[in-house]
Amino acid sequence: MDGLYHIIEAQQFSREVMKGIFGLTREMEQVVSRYGSNILNRRIMATLFYEPSTRTRLSFEASMYRLGGQVITTESAREFSSAAKGETLEDTIRIVEGYADVIVLRHYESGSARRAADVAAVPILNAGDGPGQHPTQALLDVYTIQKEIGRLDGIRVALVGDLANGRTARSLAYLLTKYEDVKLYFIAPDMVRMKDDIKAYLAEHGVAFVEEEDLMKIMPEVDVVYQTRIQRERFGDRIADYEKVRGKYIIDPAAMAVLSDKAIVMHPLPRVDEIDQAVDKDPRAAYFRQAHNGVYIRMALLQMVLEA
Amino acid sequence: MDGLYHIIEAQQFSREVMKGIFGLTREMEQVVSRYGSNILNRRIMATLFYEPSTRTRLSFEASMYRLGGQVITTESAREFSSAAKGETLEDTIRIVEGYADVIVLRHYESGSARRAADVAAVPILNAGDGPGQHPTQALLDVYTIQKEIGRLDGIRVALVGDLANGRTARSLAYLLTKYEDVKLYFIAPDMVRMKDDIKAYLAEHGVAFVEEEDLMKIMPEVDVVYQTRIQRERFGDRIADYEKVRGKYIIDPAAMAVLSDKAIVMHPLPRVDEIDQAVDKDPRAAYFRQAHNGVYIRMALLQMVLEA
Amino acid sequence: MDGLYHIIEAQQFSREVMKGIFGLTREMEQVVSRYGSNILNRRIMATLFYEPSTRTRLSFEASMYRLGGQVITTESAREFSSAAKGETLEDTIRIVEGYADVIVLRHYESGSARRAADVAAVPILNAGDGPGQHPTQALLDVYTIQKEIGRLDGIRVALVGDLANGRTARSLAYLLTKYEDVKLYFIAPDMVRMKDDIKAYLAEHGVAFVEEEDLMKIMPEVDVVYQTRIQRERFGDRIADYEKVRGKYIIDPAAMAVLSDKAIVMHPLPRVDEIDQAVDKDPRAAYFRQAHNGVYIRMALLQMVLEA
Repeated sequence: MDGLYHIIEAQQFSREVMKGIFGLTREMEQVVSRYGSNILNRRIMATLFYEPSTRTRLSFEASMYRLGGQVITTESAREFSSAAKGETLEDTIRIVEGYADVIVLRHYESGSARRAADVAAVPILNAGDGPGQHPTQALLDVYTIQKEIGRLDGIRVALVGDLANGRTARSLAYLLTKYEDVKLYFIAPDMVRMKDDIKAYLAEHGVAFVEEEDLMKIMPEVDVVYQTRIQRERFGDRIADYEKVRGKYIIDPAAMAVLSDKAIVMHPLPRVDEIDQAVDKDPRAAYFRQAHNGVYIRMALLQMVLEA
Repeated sequence: MDGLYHIIEAQQFSREVMKGIFGLTREMEQVVSRYGSNILNRRIMATLFYEPSTRTRLSFEASMYRLGGQVITTESAREFSSAAKGETLEDTIRIVEGYADVIVLRHYESGSARRAADVAAVPILNAGDGPGQHPTQALLDVYTIQKEIGRLDGIRVALVGDLANGRTARSLAYLLTKYEDVKLYFIAPDMVRMKDDIKAYLAEHGVAFVEEEDLMKIMPEVDVVYQTRIQRERFGDRIADYEKVRGKYIIDPAAMAVLSDKAIVMHPLPRVDEIDQAVDKDPRAAYFRQAHNGVYIRMALLQMVLEA
Repeated sequence: MDGLYHIIEAQQFSREVMKGIFGLTREMEQVVSRYGSNILNRRIMATLFYEPSTRTRLSFEASMYRLGGQVITTESAREFSSAAKGETLEDTIRIVEGYADVIVLRHYESGSARRAADVAAVPILNAGDGPGQHPTQALLDVYTIQKEIGRLDGIRVALVGDLANGRTARSLAYLLTKYEDVKLYFIAPDMVRMKDDIKAYLAEHGVAFVEEEDLMKIMPEVDVVYQTRIQRERFGDRIADYEKVRGKYIIDPAAMAVLSDKAIVMHPLPRVDEIDQAVDKDPRAAYFRQAHNGVYIRMALLQMVLEA
């Protein structure tokens, strides 16, 4: 794990690095079941959130506490009084690095995590920079597939919903190129289809993909259904279109009936109604387990960067 | 204390259960005077507040820290980004239970603590659900009477102020039915008199109560004066009525002069001017001690549910 | 250090007391480099902020964590639900002292820290009370000069920018009267010149001072340039005046070229553009080190008041 210091973007993780992270993540599950460790005792993590993301913040904070560390936190840019007075992100980082041993940054601008890392004397963990990256989410998604299905090579994944704007679906497609014999199915309304940049990237890296209209046809063929939320705003005035496509892509008991017994359903959450609540009790509904995996992944990353 | 897991409503506490809680609460006062314990070391409490209640939140957090635990916190629904996107309370609970070993929930809707408990894999502590319950406040009130007066059987308590809307006065009346030979005095403006449901409940459980107009007449007869705030909003346009009743029910040095030497004045706080600040130095003014008892009660409950 | 309990205003620190504080502060730098101590284990600090000041809050919280303590925090008056209902500061203090062993207070009203101390049963640390005092900032400024320049007696300091409204510049001038043979240079636009009360105070205490127009003329003569932000609002409609004076008082590479090799540039931060970012890499740019010193000063104060 030499060289793991700043965590900025999914591209920095090779297959080998991910193997190391996932091995440590499995150990972290044991640590939590023993109510934590003291390995980061007396270390301080700053959660510097320029936009609210409560789940991500709480997940990081729980991770730090499980390892015996402490947290200083600021929850929104509106509250960050210095930013309101015109302070640059770089200045804020140079101040906060005097308070903490690691900084978790959430920002509304793409590229801000990289800017922070360029000046920081402590590790920066990118917790989402606008439409850009959210690498810890991408890692926990891949980890969840590995843990639930038992392999990543040869995996067949259906990405469903808003594939144009959903940061998570795009990142997952990206990371899966690191594995062999992967096949992706894109199931999205016309308005929010997977963009050409990712398709070109997949083609270049030898990942097979198909675009499909019919969710029910694909359900029996895949190991993973990765559902995402379709935002009404994307459809503007075309509300009838929105209602139509939305209805077509809901995971409900009927869809589950044709899903393989060993397959799983994932979702980055929050979920609205694109997965029927009747599905929650199905053992193949993996989305809450997926959310919980975020704590273990972040514990592994915190330990790695603070011991680097 | 078998079976103490979720803390949802005052009704779940029998006289026997309260005796057990109060015994542990007394021990907790000793723990705080020794600057805390480590019994909940490496445990995490989530304070999930859908509406702000700073005192309640800080009191719970202090309780957890005094026992060596850690806290992850979210202060308001507006900040809870997932809720803003339409996530249900149930989904939020199923995510946060992956981050914490116990969840303290404050919510604006009656019944929400019960809904949370129905899906939660960790204990839920109700820190107030709208007009519904606030059981830790009710317990600390009863504990304060026990500690200050030395008994609960045979106690005479005047409830003063807004008895129609004040959640605390209603809960206290409810819990006191568990004790013998209790007598209650209701002293409230017409607009905000104690409601019939509580009166019927008291009658059914053999608790004597009277409604009185004259605070000064009652002061010498009681062990406890439980004052509450009368909210101007309840009177709408009838401001003259509001000003008149308000003046009648202020606890000031003149009222204290006729109160028994061994009696006490309580208030759930915040206090505006319904207790004259000149009363604060009187040793019978128990309201700040009452607030501090909240930490000990919550420590006892946290230890009980986390060791259950 | 007998008698150090509440930290309310710069006036309470004699030269001798500051010497003691600074000695302990130097030890704290060692403590942080060893990742903290456990001396305040199980102690709780409440940060009670009636107006946001993220840097000050995070700095205090980091200080408490570095010493092994815990923190309960409220970030803004708007969120402080009891205050919204009309609770007095005094009542809030009497409640929170039941939750914490020390209270750090930030308030928008001058004199509020003194009011809090008058009723508090635990130490109050003033983290800024409106236009009034911010004594921990004043101490960290003096500490920074001592540490960077190696002495305080005989020091020559240029105070630049808004000297009328800048609380920090005024406090620094005040504290420097405790040392021998100090000379101050005031370099400020007419609208925001140093006020007569401070000048009279300096004259009375034998501190030499001059008012100067030309920053470049003064740069070679001083040990410390203490830059502050000029707020546009102070100039009302006179925007042309604002732009003119602002340009005159920017610290840029040209200004640094005439500054002594052993001198330093300080700034209370946040900085907008009154110090050119090109200066940041100059070893004489001490403003980020100055901000970091705040953690050590606050650690020293927390240890002193909690062991008093």
